[in-house]
Amino acid sequence: MSKIIGSSLKNIPWQDKPKGFNGPIWRHSENPIINRNPVNGVARIFNSAVVPYEGAFIGVFRGETINGRPHIYLGRSKDGLHWEFDEEKIKFFDEDGKPYQPLYAYDPRLVKVEDAYYIIWCGDFDGASIGLARTTDFKTFTRLENPFLPFNRNAVLFPRRINGKYVMLSRPSDNGHTQFGDIMLSQSPDLKYWGEHRLVMQKGGNGWWQSVKIGCGPAPIELDDGWLIFYHGVTGTCNGLVYSMSAAILDKDNPAKVLYRAGSFMLTPEEWYEERGFVPNVVFPCAALCDADTGRIAIYYGAADSYVAVAYTTLDETLNFIKEHNEVLPLDSTDGKI
Amino acid sequence: MSKIIGSSLKNIPWQDKPKGFNGPIWRHSENPIINRNPVNGVARIFNSAVVPYEGAFIGVFRGETINGRPHIYLGRSKDGLHWEFDEEKIKFFDEDGKPYQPLYAYDPRLVKVEDAYYIIWCGDFDGASIGLARTTDFKTFTRLENPFLPFNRNAVLFPRRINGKYVMLSRPSDNGHTQFGDIMLSQSPDLKYWGEHRLVMQKGGNGWWQSVKIGCGPAPIELDDGWLIFYHGVTGTCNGLVYSMSAAILDKDNPAKVLYRAGSFMLTPEEWYEERGFVPNVVFPCAALCDADTGRIAIYYGAADSYVAVAYTTLDETLNFIKEHNEVLPLDSTDGKI
Amino acid sequence: MSKIIGSSLKNIPWQDKPKGFNGPIWRHSENPIINRNPVNGVARIFNSAVVPYEGAFIGVFRGETINGRPHIYLGRSKDGLHWEFDEEKIKFFDEDGKPYQPLYAYDPRLVKVEDAYYIIWCGDFDGASIGLARTTDFKTFTRLENPFLPFNRNAVLFPRRINGKYVMLSRPSDNGHTQFGDIMLSQSPDLKYWGEHRLVMQKGGNGWWQSVKIGCGPAPIELDDGWLIFYHGVTGTCNGLVYSMSAAILDKDNPAKVLYRAGSFMLTPEEWYEERGFVPNVVFPCAALCDADTGRIAIYYGAADSYVAVAYTTLDETLNFIKEHNEVLPLDSTDGKI
Amino acid sequence: MSKIIGSSLKNIPWQDKPKGFNGPIWRHSENPIINRNPVNGVARIFNSAVVPYEGAFIGVFRGETINGRPHIYLGRSKDGLHWEFDEEKIKFFDEDGKPYQPLYAYDPRLVKVEDAYYIIWCGDFDGASIGLARTTDFKTFTRLENPFLPFNRNAVLFPRRINGKYVMLSRPSDNGHTQFGDIMLSQSPDLKYWGEHRLVMQKGGNGWWQSVKIGCGPAPIELDDGWLIFYHGVTGTCNGLVYSMSAAILDKDNPAKVLYRAGSFMLTPEEWYEERGFVPNVVFPCAALCDADTGRIAIYYGAADSYVAVAYTTLDETLNFIKEHNEVLPLDSTDGKI
Amino acid sequence: MSKIIGSSLKNIPWQDKPKGFNGPIWRHSENPIINRNPVNGVARIFNSAVVPYEGAFIGVFRGETINGRPHIYLGRSKDGLHWEFDEEKIKFFDEDGKPYQPLYAYDPRLVKVEDAYYIIWCGDFDGASIGLARTTDFKTFTRLENPFLPFNRNAVLFPRRINGKYVMLSRPSDNGHTQFGDIMLSQSPDLKYWGEHRLVMQKGGNGWWQSVKIGCGPAPIELDDGWLIFYHGVTGTCNGLVYSMSAAILDKDNPAKVLYRAGSFMLTPEEWYEERGFVPNVVFPCAALCDADTGRIAIYYGAADSYVAVAYTTLDETLNFIKEHNEVLPLDSTDGKI
Amino acid sequence: MSKIIGSSLKNIPWQDKPKGFNGPIWRHSENPIINRNPVNGVARIFNSAVVPYEGAFIGVFRGETINGRPHIYLGRSKDGLHWEFDEEKIKFFDEDGKPYQPLYAYDPRLVKVEDAYYIIWCGDFDGASIGLARTTDFKTFTRLENPFLPFNRNAVLFPRRINGKYVMLSRPSDNGHTQFGDIMLSQSPDLKYWGEHRLVMQKGGNGWWQSVKIGCGPAPIELDDGWLIFYHGVTGTCNGLVYSMSAAILDKDNPAKVLYRAGSFMLTPEEWYEERGFVPNVVFPCAALCDADTGRIAIYYGAADSYVAVAYTTLDETLNFIKEHNEVLPLDSTDGKI
Repeated sequence: MSKIIGSSLKNIPWQDKPKGFNGPIWRHSENPIINRNPVNGVARIFNSAVVPYEGAFIGVFRGETINGRPHIYLGRSKDGLHWEFDEEKIKFFDEDGKPYQPLYAYDPRLVKVEDAYYIIWCGDFDGASIGLARTTDFKTFTRLENPFLPFNRNAVLFPRRINGKYVMLSRPSDNGHTQFGDIMLSQSPDLKYWGEHRLVMQKGGNGWWQSVKIGCGPAPIELDDGWLIFYHGVTGTCNGLVYSMSAAILDKDNPAKVLYRAGSFMLTPEEWYEERGFVPNVVFPCAALCDADTGRIAIYYGAADSYVAVAYTTLDETLNFIKEHNEVLPLDSTDGKI
Repeated sequence: MSKIIGSSLKNIPWQDKPKGFNGPIWRHSENPIINRNPVNGVARIFNSAVVPYEGAFIGVFRGETINGRPHIYLGRSKDGLHWEFDEEKIKFFDEDGKPYQPLYAYDPRLVKVEDAYYIIWCGDFDGASIGLARTTDFKTFTRLENPFLPFNRNAVLFPRRINGKYVMLSRPSDNGHTQFGDIMLSQSPDLKYWGEHRLVMQKGGNGWWQSVKIGCGPAPIELDDGWLIFYHGVTGTCNGLVYSMSAAILDKDNPAKVLYRAGSFMLTPEEWYEERGFVPNVVFPCAALCDADTGRIAIYYGAADSYVAVAYTTLDETLNFIKEHNEVLPLDSTDGKI
Repeated sequence: MSKIIGSSLKNIPWQDKPKGFNGPIWRHSENPIINRNPVNGVARIFNSAVVPYEGAFIGVFRGETINGRPHIYLGRSKDGLHWEFDEEKIKFFDEDGKPYQPLYAYDPRLVKVEDAYYIIWCGDFDGASIGLARTTDFKTFTRLENPFLPFNRNAVLFPRRINGKYVMLSRPSDNGHTQFGDIMLSQSPDLKYWGEHRLVMQKGGNGWWQSVKIGCGPAPIELDDGWLIFYHGVTGTCNGLVYSMSAAILDKDNPAKVLYRAGSFMLTPEEWYEERGFVPNVVFPCAALCDADTGRIAIYYGAADSYVAVAYTTLDETLNFIKEHNEVLPLDSTDGKI
Repeated sequence: MSKIIGSSLKNIPWQDKPKGFNGPIWRHSENPIINRNPVNGVARIFNSAVVPYEGAFIGVFRGETINGRPHIYLGRSKDGLHWEFDEEKIKFFDEDGKPYQPLYAYDPRLVKVEDAYYIIWCGDFDGASIGLARTTDFKTFTRLENPFLPFNRNAVLFPRRINGKYVMLSRPSDNGHTQFGDIMLSQSPDLKYWGEHRLVMQKGGNGWWQSVKIGCGPAPIELDDGWLIFYHGVTGTCNGLVYSMSAAILDKDNPAKVLYRAGSFMLTPEEWYEERGFVPNVVFPCAALCDADTGRIAIYYGAADSYVAVAYTTLDETLNFIKEHNEVLPLDSTDGKI
Repeated sequence: MSKIIGSSLKNIPWQDKPKGFNGPIWRHSENPIINRNPVNGVARIFNSAVVPYEGAFIGVFRGETINGRPHIYLGRSKDGLHWEFDEEKIKFFDEDGKPYQPLYAYDPRLVKVEDAYYIIWCGDFDGASIGLARTTDFKTFTRLENPFLPFNRNAVLFPRRINGKYVMLSRPSDNGHTQFGDIMLSQSPDLKYWGEHRLVMQKGGNGWWQSVKIGCGPAPIELDDGWLIFYHGVTGTCNGLVYSMSAAILDKDNPAKVLYRAGSFMLTPEEWYEERGFVPNVVFPCAALCDADTGRIAIYYGAADSYVAVAYTTLDETLNFIKEHNEVLPLDSTDGKI
Repeated sequence: MSKIIGSSLKNIPWQDKPKGFNGPIWRHSENPIINRNPVNGVARIFNSAVVPYEGAFIGVFRGETINGRPHIYLGRSKDGLHWEFDEEKIKFFDEDGKPYQPLYAYDPRLVKVEDAYYIIWCGDFDGASIGLARTTDFKTFTRLENPFLPFNRNAVLFPRRINGKYVMLSRPSDNGHTQFGDIMLSQSPDLKYWGEHRLVMQKGGNGWWQSVKIGCGPAPIELDDGWLIFYHGVTGTCNGLVYSMSAAILDKDNPAKVLYRAGSFMLTPEEWYEERGFVPNVVFPCAALCDADTGRIAIYYGAADSYVAVAYTTLDETLNFIKEHNEVLPLDSTDGKI
């Protein structure tokens, strides 16, 4: 069986799988872990990302202020479940030290690549586009060049360079509530200029749960024989979209190739905090903590654009599920150069 | 007062009308009767149909698999309230015994016509269309020719031939989340060739609850002086559609003519299991059990495309309501030949 | 600090702000105060308006009948929280005493202007338009001329003439589920002919909660140095609209000018009765009771187009909030003559 | 037979009906009479209105400037067919003499009411709305209050007061390329305050040419026994809208009542200058000259939003056509008070 | 090479292929053959069908009346190019001799099957649906049962029974300006009851000209080794749809199977009468005359929903083109049973 | 006055400005220069680009094949007006010499940058995206990496590196008939990795002709004090989009800054070949030839997606027009870093 390449994380939030429960992912029993109005002037925190940091946990959080505009807030936690937030949104500066604040920023991801932490978000660059910033101390945040032209959402970096290049996954979009979307990959020698874009995987397949669009979630998790990604898939009903979650394995050296991909969802909205809220029927994973020793994985996901919730799985549960429900679409298994 | 033409069904699921409740239909107190993840690999069962069978109950159930695609599953119950399901979807064969499986199948109805049971569903025939199969033993299922060209949904057979011909109600549709729809009737000498199509009843009227579309539900119930149908009506809001339920009486010999029709709904989403779920605000009746002796009727309805629920009424309650709120639209009362 | 110009209202419904609660408006602890099926044949009452009357309270209520069409019902209450309703909708007559009943009527407001009470609603005048009626005794209701051409919604009168003229706020609309809308003002010497139309305030601004449309709520409350209005603002998500509530201060002599306006919402859907129902995610204020002595304000709002709920604030809380979050758009601060 | 109440106009532009031509309206043989780029900086003139003035003709013209924004230009002609235009758009001032220029203005009508000339156009008042100005000398133009709230288009005044009140026809609209629209009527004692709004006539009917929307054209022409109006009707195809022209007779004393109305079009796009241009397939009448002596009528219409063209008819031809194809819709014949 | 199974038609309209012209179909040099206002009260004739009859030609013509509603008119011609029309639309009676007139009827086809002529059109049956009538003398026209439920367009019969059954091609549609559509086939023992529906061919393929929808045109032409059909294919642009024409060969015994199909169009709008008119950019074939002796084919097509035009080809030209550009889609080559 | 930095081009196609013509751009008198069916199997050539080459002219042409799919064809001309085309589309190979053919390719631009020629087009990369290829001899064409993620259209290179970097203009789009679009700029050290993206100029402004979207046309023309670009602007009508042409001057060293920009169009559809065709009302410039000696400019533009046409201007005419109608939007004049 595959193994996670990474550190041990003994204090990973964890609950054992409930007896009688058959699914591959199980919810934290005290969800949601972040409730309404968590910070003065912030109505909802959701779709947020965390990493282990200095023996505890730190994270970047989508805080929807009471004027309805999203910004990124820093939060800290000892156990990964109870969080304290800065009252002020994160301040970004460009590489010359001048203020370079996004007009708004949402759905942040947080990835440690080599010796720095990168925040990747969706902000305004004449339309929804990817923003990128680096920090090493979570005190100063240096915003880099926007990696792509608009319109784009749901970007995340790989946690290390591959073949000498930084690699980013993203989902090209349009300027509205996009009704389509596939996951693509881009490469950069320096995090400034990007190219060698590749198609990674497409919406669709035999099932319907990911028929409208798909998008990246947590940073890819390195395995000895591939990259594990959790991602969201979206279907449409006469009363709106439904966001579920599942997983796939990408090729170790050429992650534009999909080795295995679950044709079924692993988690879908079923609880009240997922089914009602600002955007009903949304399960939206943005981060995963892993313990390489045990294979335990704790997934942080936004619920109904209103809450942060946690769910658990293990590497083995996930791999078994993916392989049992394996469905790789024709272009998924190519190198994605079109 | 009218009477139900049919058998006695002493073991019909039943609860008396709660005191202080004024409506014509009352919910089973332990709804939903079928909850999430009822079968391994099936996320939700809803919009399903049952019949009495060998002293107990049997049914065909829309099982939404975890890849989001619907199929039909067989279920059995002693009391009509607690159900056990086959793990595998029903397998269909054509009249030559070759596999003839629908690509997907949803919203099944189940009707005994003379000495056989017919399953009618919506499946893919280059777009949403009606599928039809026959069984006599619920072990082998023979799929017949698709009765109609696409696009169509919500078809159901009458429980006996009328004037020597099989009669089917259906709702012509389009290839998306149809925003219109009326109930029509078609006739066949042999269940293979269909014609003499007629308009039965149209959406609209003075009220708004059935202003977007209407569609058939359970098989028509034969009365001494007409046919009783329960059907769904749909209205539109700025945040999506709302599906309610009501009833009408069709002419005994020419069921293309509507004798009475309730201009108001009898049941509308009010409970949490009807208001939130995969498709919020849906009450969708697909089957009714009747006891001819007492006039008791147990209606099975899908709730929020997530659950099966049961509600109760009697023939008298229903007829009183229909006649008190009678509103027959101009074309409803004609023979529907245009 | 400003003061309310008006009467004392000692029996105003009231609850103190809960400890630990930071927001400017707090909900009544036993919401919703009007539940489903409150009157025979009426499925839901919501979006309704009340006034003090003869030492108690009286109101006009949007009753959605079981055929889905809305009408206005009269209700009476001793404490403003427990209501009793007439079984029949209000009957309107024209100035000649002939029946002049609206085909439907929804979202009524109720304002005492000088010595009469005016009901203002949205009804059908070849499309959604404003209806207007006067009563002095809540027994006879005289419907006046429709003040405006279609399409319009959410109109409300000022409680006294300004510069000798009646003044009405409204929101020009279209003939569907309007996806835009600003608040305008119109003037009349006689409540029959209207002109001198002005733009008051526009949707938009830095935040997103009021980016789709805005609309008037309760009648303007006279202060010593302005007019306080509560209004709803609407944002759009991939799964529908979200209606929140906030407030602004208009110029005393020329209420087409906005002096202060909150750029953030004061109340947004968070409770189950606001988040699920016939139209999920709606907080829709239609009336406010004020006690000039204490500055207490009780706001009546529709919840999810399904319930009536009450929330509390004070003049000081509201003014502090508005000024702290003040954001007046460029055209808001002009006299609105274009 | 009816007669035109009005002056003789011996120099009315005129051509006899071509031999072999059967239709009720025939085109000027040298159409279009105003071609592309008629004024420096103006790309197209169309949808414009003219009146007799000091023995010749004067008019207000929709000039689409080369930045694509429309304004009103003054033009003069000796024969009504060859026109010279001012290089500058008309300047408007309010009643206090301050500049009060519309941000844009299109589709002007020009009507002499008693001793003054009124220009009525569609401009921006937080959306498409009616603008109104008065002149007596075509040198100074006094812009009055906007008569209505938005959204509205295609307004025109009656040429005299009726029952002591000014009367205006208009078509309530939405804020886009409106896909619906009926003709309504409003009354005013003073051209400042407007009320007693009435529905005059609705789109629809047995034919399809006016199934999408209808709108007023030239000022109503007074007959001894009614008011003659020419109006446009619009139908929809898979490749866009088609604008045709027809006529109706309104009641003399209560012009909210339609006496006769042609159910068929009198003129529809057939010529190259009507079928191709900025907006293909548009025939859009905005003015009519009449000679009371002979009953001759010259209609000025915009063609394809690119040209001005002229067509001819007579009162008798028009009345015969209307009565032969008479089709008055149910609400057309009422007083339109709803 | 294949041969046409049929009669000789020496007087078929004909012009030789122009020198230097390379395409497979060439236009009649005096197109359009039917111009505007061909009949009193009829504005346009287009999308019409003709057959040889008694040594001359007869046809059924879509006449768009001046109220915009289409009906079917009978026309006669000696040479197939110059036509005279009845002033009155065709009157239909049911099989009992009672009037059974379609509310409207458009795009008629005319096919001789055995010893009778059948008119097939699109009319209103609670939405766009297929109408069917029979005549033997072009004096009395017996309307039969509507063969299908709505919504459907572009149906045509095969000119003889196949395997003992009548066979009809049609295109299932929706209730608007349908943005999709494939060709299906239905069978009937008696022209009254229809079943054994099959998918014949789908829109799409490598090229874009038929990417939106396809639909049947003239009646299938019997060859010694298949059935030749001409059909229209539609593509979409930012300024509307474009209708072109091409051809395919169906299996002789099972015409649900496509043997060959041109992946490219044979004729596309290029002339003024095809590019501008009531619906710009439409080439819409509805009938073909063939001379079995020479293989000459004259195709009648509607142009821009405004004119009838004629184009010529030969069987050899057509077969060569189809085979050279052969592109059969996956489901086209199956028996279409799904 | 500014000067063109470039070569003399004595054989530039040219006609003097017609007498009496006032506009800044005048059409070639024998337009269109490329007509329908110019190559066997190619129905239309339009939206194409040319450069001087070896004393004559060469170009890359959008050839719409008869199956409706566009490809790029090579053409050669002695005078720039009469063109001969290769029968086969251009074959592309990747940098390793393997075939790397776009699935389709449209709207090509052709730019000489230093010592090579670059073709830039829009093709399929999981949606509309920019393709890029290099040639030095117009015999072998090396396709490079796609510079950007989808969705994008209308890209063009600057003719030389600026500050050491290649610079490309493009218009981010969506996956349909995009209803929005601004011009952005991207930079690359090597034509492989791209970054430092900047907003150049936005749709909108005081006029309406460029209110829907704008997009780059010919390669920027170097002046002594800036870069001259011709671009298209699009407006919307109820019957579709209209594409016009105008020009702007970008900063010499930082072309993300707009120095001057015409707020009015210089050329708009007026001729039959611009107003009717496959996409009516399109003037779409893709290339410009310049003679540095005289300042003459010949612009090649697509007309109605059906033809290639030529129009003439001079540098002085263009600069005068731009400055006279100068309208730079707020973000246009910044460095576009957001």
